Amino acid sequence: MVKAAIVNVTGYAGVELARLLARHPDVEITEVTGRSRAGERLADAFPHLADLDLEIVPKVSESADVVFVALPHTAAAEAVPDLLDNGARIVDISADFRLHDAAVYENWYKTDHPAKELLSDAVYGLPELHADEVRSARIVANPGCYPTGAILALAPVAEMTAPDIIIDSKSGVSGGGRSPTLTNHYSEVNESCHAYGLGGHRHLPEIEQELAELRSKPDAGLPDLCITFVPHLVPMTRGILTTAYARLEQPLSGGDIESIYTDFYRNAPFVRVVDQPPRTKQAWGSNFCLVHPTIDARTGRLLVIAAIDNLVKGASGQAIQNMNLMFGLDETASIGQTSIYP
Amino acid sequence: MVKAAIVNVTGYAGVELARLLARHPDVEITEVTGRSRAGERLADAFPHLADLDLEIVPKVSESADVVFVALPHTAAAEAVPDLLDNGARIVDISADFRLHDAAVYENWYKTDHPAKELLSDAVYGLPELHADEVRSARIVANPGCYPTGAILALAPVAEMTAPDIIIDSKSGVSGGGRSPTLTNHYSEVNESCHAYGLGGHRHLPEIEQELAELRSKPDAGLPDLCITFVPHLVPMTRGILTTAYARLEQPLSGGDIESIYTDFYRNAPFVRVVDQPPRTKQAWGSNFCLVHPTIDARTGRLLVIAAIDNLVKGASGQAIQNMNLMFGLDETASIGQTSIYP
Amino acid sequence: MVKAAIVNVTGYAGVELARLLARHPDVEITEVTGRSRAGERLADAFPHLADLDLEIVPKVSESADVVFVALPHTAAAEAVPDLLDNGARIVDISADFRLHDAAVYENWYKTDHPAKELLSDAVYGLPELHADEVRSARIVANPGCYPTGAILALAPVAEMTAPDIIIDSKSGVSGGGRSPTLTNHYSEVNESCHAYGLGGHRHLPEIEQELAELRSKPDAGLPDLCITFVPHLVPMTRGILTTAYARLEQPLSGGDIESIYTDFYRNAPFVRVVDQPPRTKQAWGSNFCLVHPTIDARTGRLLVIAAIDNLVKGASGQAIQNMNLMFGLDETASIGQTSIYP
Amino acid sequence: MVKAAIVNVTGYAGVELARLLARHPDVEITEVTGRSRAGERLADAFPHLADLDLEIVPKVSESADVVFVALPHTAAAEAVPDLLDNGARIVDISADFRLHDAAVYENWYKTDHPAKELLSDAVYGLPELHADEVRSARIVANPGCYPTGAILALAPVAEMTAPDIIIDSKSGVSGGGRSPTLTNHYSEVNESCHAYGLGGHRHLPEIEQELAELRSKPDAGLPDLCITFVPHLVPMTRGILTTAYARLEQPLSGGDIESIYTDFYRNAPFVRVVDQPPRTKQAWGSNFCLVHPTIDARTGRLLVIAAIDNLVKGASGQAIQNMNLMFGLDETASIGQTSIYP
Repeated sequence: MVKAAIVNVTGYAGVELARLLARHPDVEITEVTGRSRAGERLADAFPHLADLDLEIVPKVSESADVVFVALPHTAAAEAVPDLLDNGARIVDISADFRLHDAAVYENWYKTDHPAKELLSDAVYGLPELHADEVRSARIVANPGCYPTGAILALAPVAEMTAPDIIIDSKSGVSGGGRSPTLTNHYSEVNESCHAYGLGGHRHLPEIEQELAELRSKPDAGLPDLCITFVPHLVPMTRGILTTAYARLEQPLSGGDIESIYTDFYRNAPFVRVVDQPPRTKQAWGSNFCLVHPTIDARTGRLLVIAAIDNLVKGASGQAIQNMNLMFGLDETASIGQTSIYP
Repeated sequence: MVKAAIVNVTGYAGVELARLLARHPDVEITEVTGRSRAGERLADAFPHLADLDLEIVPKVSESADVVFVALPHTAAAEAVPDLLDNGARIVDISADFRLHDAAVYENWYKTDHPAKELLSDAVYGLPELHADEVRSARIVANPGCYPTGAILALAPVAEMTAPDIIIDSKSGVSGGGRSPTLTNHYSEVNESCHAYGLGGHRHLPEIEQELAELRSKPDAGLPDLCITFVPHLVPMTRGILTTAYARLEQPLSGGDIESIYTDFYRNAPFVRVVDQPPRTKQAWGSNFCLVHPTIDARTGRLLVIAAIDNLVKGASGQAIQNMNLMFGLDETASIGQTSIYP
Repeated sequence: MVKAAIVNVTGYAGVELARLLARHPDVEITEVTGRSRAGERLADAFPHLADLDLEIVPKVSESADVVFVALPHTAAAEAVPDLLDNGARIVDISADFRLHDAAVYENWYKTDHPAKELLSDAVYGLPELHADEVRSARIVANPGCYPTGAILALAPVAEMTAPDIIIDSKSGVSGGGRSPTLTNHYSEVNESCHAYGLGGHRHLPEIEQELAELRSKPDAGLPDLCITFVPHLVPMTRGILTTAYARLEQPLSGGDIESIYTDFYRNAPFVRVVDQPPRTKQAWGSNFCLVHPTIDARTGRLLVIAAIDNLVKGASGQAIQNMNLMFGLDETASIGQTSIYP
Repeated sequence: MVKAAIVNVTGYAGVELARLLARHPDVEITEVTGRSRAGERLADAFPHLADLDLEIVPKVSESADVVFVALPHTAAAEAVPDLLDNGARIVDISADFRLHDAAVYENWYKTDHPAKELLSDAVYGLPELHADEVRSARIVANPGCYPTGAILALAPVAEMTAPDIIIDSKSGVSGGGRSPTLTNHYSEVNESCHAYGLGGHRHLPEIEQELAELRSKPDAGLPDLCITFVPHLVPMTRGILTTAYARLEQPLSGGDIESIYTDFYRNAPFVRVVDQPPRTKQAWGSNFCLVHPTIDARTGRLLVIAAIDNLVKGASGQAIQNMNLMFGLDETASIGQTSIYP
């Protein structure tokens, strides 16, 4: 049994990790931490987890094989070195190890990176792109929720598009975390929809990094991508719908595009290339990403729609998918469930 | 492997049965029917079930060990005799076999009962009350969604209450089924709440039947119950919250009441007696019923709050719980999952 | 023109007062206060009020004819004496002047009352019961949102019911105010319903006081009421649905009951006795209370359903209705608008 | 008083017209029609309109000064000639008179146009572009809900953008009408978001027509626009958020852009150029369109966000705005109200 600890179980990513890991056949949750609720039974803090016999502790004390770090950025990078010293492998849900270049991190997060020296050890944990590196990684940087949908929507054509890309994403409210703010107040959010982050959202550099890498074949001479990413808040708890717009360098038919996507994801157990625009509800509660690429016949533009559950494939499910790869387990263990409808 | 068929898979109860049965370790879904979508792949009609390799057929053709009947009332009773003749045992989701007395049925449903002769073979499938009879039944009548919450809220004290009982229930919209009507139109339901069925809701006689039976000890001389049941529609997809109000014949403390409930449900894997008012979200997606009994200190009244997911414990999950009992399987097989939060 | 000031405009009651008063033909808003946003333009803090040319100030500085106090309890009672000294009449949205008996207040609110000496000057501002006293009052205590629906549901039969009354109310989230908490976090509230305040909600003593007063005819010898009131939170922004259950001392027909209600409210411009169970949406954005009394034919019990918008009839609209009476204006001025559907 | 009739009052646009017209100081609603509910009192069919003393009739029988036609497309064009013969002027809410070119109509709507000969008499009723023509028009074609937001977002820069334009719109459910379908079933829509109309939505040719017209200065030699428009359904009742992406032919600063928009809309009482991304809630229940143009500093792209209430500015409010212009009334009469928050 793999011994797993969760640091900061009391956020939405942490509690979803606990729910999913609890049914993992090869994993035992040994410890969960959470400063504000330390000393409480997990089941008291989160009644839906009544079956889990765990106390929330202030700090990981014993050695675990894997530690899921669900801290805010900066705090995560501060915690990781000690955890590594204890011999654990890390799946970090925060943004701290996603960007390879510390300068890019510091530019977007407006703070020094507390553990730059570890960046080169970290793997961007989108298994559909980096499964092999994930398998042997000490630190897996779990992708952001928006980047998961956006990169999966565009990766198969990263080398085929013109530089101009528009990514218009619509997210449920849980993506903003569990701390109460006016932005997640029911009466403010319900019956409303808005765009935010127009000045530049921190998930953009992840998208740029990963698509650029796919595009960076030596000598291909492809121009740099020029991406505009606009996230929107939509009145629902879970789900991200990504709508991506691009021009292809060479015209392709709808059939061609479908083949390219199907082929690209032929070994990806959690990506479904679908022939209708997916609804976020079709991914609700599951680790699946539903991707629908199509050509706008009037303009020749490529449109790609991708739907995920932001807390599963966009966070905790993907973290477990990464852990499964790291420990040689079945990639789908504990996260293969169907989405819940309606 | 138990061979299971689902008649009328295309409603919400049917599709939820398919989702849950698909992961049952001891069950194989052999056939699913649905007139309007016959000939389609189940995965095309319901994309979240992409993993299920099943075609929707017009009629159950081969022999199954158990048939789940998710037809409307009357149609269910018309279908059951043939299914029994084929040797299947039945879990009927409709109301047709819930009431022991055909006259009561005909009074509430305003129609002849198409298979009265089978009523005496049917068991009311609330496992917390009738597990033993369910084990050997040919026909299990799966309880209505409202009665599940209401009966579980009141069963432990059925012999202890004064006759006057008020049951005020709040249901999500999926309880009304999948056929589009003005009553489930998003724009009509959202930002609205209303009571309905004030003239008498068809779930009331089930509640009366079961509570009266618990109260009917020979020679106890308890007066007949006098129940008012008012269902309400609330803007959410899943969930029923039941608030029950009664007076106890003998005053009891909060501690006494908690003991009575805990004791009554000590062997019930899906009922949790909780010490805080439950939220329907805490049961969302699970087969659990959370019950919170308390005494209103100012008036001495008993208040009981119960929360279920109407499509799981209130329909398909409970149907599988019944099937598990009928076939000697683990009562929790395929339905033991934690609820999903948030 | 009546000069009106709003103390603490930045909560939901305050901002709704501003919206409604802005179109009042006989009122000029002279000042609005709000500590946290003092110095800002009201239109910047609340973009929907772009038309109002007002700055948020820290404190009411000039003399107003009427001051609407939308402060939390205790803070309101602390502020009122100075406002009265400045010559203003007061409509207090808080609970501070609703209960005639300071001891009851102190028992429920667990604090000393800061201005007990003013309690005898205050009128409980439910215009359907106390219009005449409101007209001449210096201090009008605007009723709570739950009591507004509950009292209007039961007032016409207060003298005719047996003592046992159950009031089961369902409220939207805005009733809990604008400060972000876990209880109004979208992801916690959406797809969920729960009961709260089982130990006794502070709105109960208002309901008791008003119904008891209606019942207190000299020599009638009616027994004291025994009310259980259970509020519930429902995933919607606005609206309260009240379901009240009582037994009548003398059996009455549905027609009798309808006549009693119609007669009782014949001069009440904002109460509509309706012949179908009302939906909160039918009161959405309006000052109307829709009341549907009916007899449960099976049990003879009286059921009454009442629907209001908690921020209008349950707060700011009713405050303006009171002000209209206090200043001899048309009772419906600025609050006569139809509800918004869908 | 202008005598107004509403044809097909029973849809969401019709009933919203009734609500808004009822408070118009210069208009009398003389007749409302609706086949399915003919013979009923309007107040019985729509309880929120209890104040309106009108019977739903099968057909407009008497002469009105203006008829609002809220029929489905084709049916509207069939009804209009007789109404004109009766001497009425027409505001048509359907799509039938929006496109100048019958061939374009027939291509998108896949049907013959029943009254092509009237197309040249019709004015596209977006008052911000065509107020003068509206004033004298016999037939005003009220714009579609999506085009209202999209055109207002882009009109000020129609001559300044490169041809490639992306319009990504998010709509509430009421835009799809009142007839129950699986697409507006609460349980299907809630907690879900999806794109639709990827093959081409019928509102696109309106957007193209109007933007092309603005761009068509003789001798300017601007290339044709190449617009991709993708509508999305979001779980809310009212509201459309439009996010438009374009490149400017000449680089402009954020300040330049704001000036261009402010100047363009300086005389438009219902367009507010705002300096923060608007929320649809800020337009909820009002006739305002909030427009936020900004430059994406990283890419130089123009982003424009526009928010409207689809049933007011996107349908019935705009129809009244047009009527106000047609009859020389105050442009804001009966539709100047603030939006409702929260």
